[in-house]
Amino acid sequence: MKRAVVLLSGGLDSATTLAIARNQGYACHCLSLDYGQRHRAELQAAAHMAAALGATAHRTLTLDLSVFGGSALTDKNLAVPTHEQPGEQAGIPITYVPARNTIMLSLALAWAEVLQAQDIFIGANAVDYSGYPDCRPEYISAFEAMANLATKAAVEGRRTAIHSPLITLSKANIIRKGIELGVDYALTVSCYQADDAGRACGVCDSCRLRRKGFAEAGVSDPTRYA
Amino acid sequence: MKRAVVLLSGGLDSATTLAIARNQGYACHCLSLDYGQRHRAELQAAAHMAAALGATAHRTLTLDLSVFGGSALTDKNLAVPTHEQPGEQAGIPITYVPARNTIMLSLALAWAEVLQAQDIFIGANAVDYSGYPDCRPEYISAFEAMANLATKAAVEGRRTAIHSPLITLSKANIIRKGIELGVDYALTVSCYQADDAGRACGVCDSCRLRRKGFAEAGVSDPTRYA
Repeated sequence: MKRAVVLLSGGLDSATTLAIARNQGYACHCLSLDYGQRHRAELQAAAHMAAALGATAHRTLTLDLSVFGGSALTDKNLAVPTHEQPGEQAGIPITYVPARNTIMLSLALAWAEVLQAQDIFIGANAVDYSGYPDCRPEYISAFEAMANLATKAAVEGRRTAIHSPLITLSKANIIRKGIELGVDYALTVSCYQADDAGRACGVCDSCRLRRKGFAEAGVSDPTRYA
Repeated sequence: MKRAVVLLSGGLDSATTLAIARNQGYACHCLSLDYGQRHRAELQAAAHMAAALGATAHRTLTLDLSVFGGSALTDKNLAVPTHEQPGEQAGIPITYVPARNTIMLSLALAWAEVLQAQDIFIGANAVDYSGYPDCRPEYISAFEAMANLATKAAVEGRRTAIHSPLITLSKANIIRKGIELGVDYALTVSCYQADDAGRACGVCDSCRLRRKGFAEAGVSDPTRYA
């Protein structure tokens, strides 16, 4: 059975990505990062998701990115936006965490190397999060090129592939895909400021996108709102 | 004053790199990683070096890479080699930490983004550590290309440069350069298994390379041996 490292945040996108990797027959080693995000419910959701979708292993690394600041997701002095911002689509949201995907993919690469896994899955999506530079296809390709020079595996001729199966899907199509693969979205937490019980605020950007996705997919929204 | 992020391990190479960055006029923000390496003396040496060379800031992030295992530097079940291994030059040493430079450069990139710094310095060296894939010039170039797609700065047209000023220098020439710039190498710890007081074993690969470097540079070796 081929091994893969799957980045798992506890949200809707990474849960769907795990389901896709499992459906492709991978033994999935899931990696979550406790990077100082505002709430813990997301990490608990990741553990539930890994178990529900039959992951082989699940590990959570702790790395306090809040020491750098600069994001509303890690810096308690910056507010999470709760309504459509004027000009928001043109810029990069304050919820962007500097170099987050680069850090997470680097950690996945380290684990993949130890596991001798040649496949890494990430739920990056360029449609809804077009403002996040590290969710673009050209970024993923550049990371893959770098990874194939970075490791022992690369020197020995084994290639590493970075899979981002959701990158061009709309939220509605991600949800349709996940439902088809049996994902229980009630276990996932997307909200940027969920409470300790994992209940969503319903008003942040991530909640709005998620709610709209369920509506467009014609699927009843299983989210627990506060 | 231009800002730079400088990766600082506490060893000879990164100390020299910091001196070079300071000499080029950068306000240096030094980043160390407590990744579960065998000894703490290296991190203390990093703090001393940052102060001695006039760094603007110094932060140490904690990230326990020993959970992945696979390296003699983080896995206590693997022994640090203490003599020339047959065929060692042809392979990748057991002291290689999977994806270490990729992880450290990713963290530097995150901090650089928050600081709006466009320059990152790393003491990677392809001469003595030719067995480490992530110390090769082509790897550094690929990381730089990826970084220039990964960040808000990239989207806004500000380029990030990854500087590896030691990459083609011999250990002797690194030492000559550092002496010229006033580096006090007595403050640095290179040994893979130094004791708590920072005293070197004298027999691991890193100790042997360092000792040979001082001899070739014609500089008396200030290393404190156990």
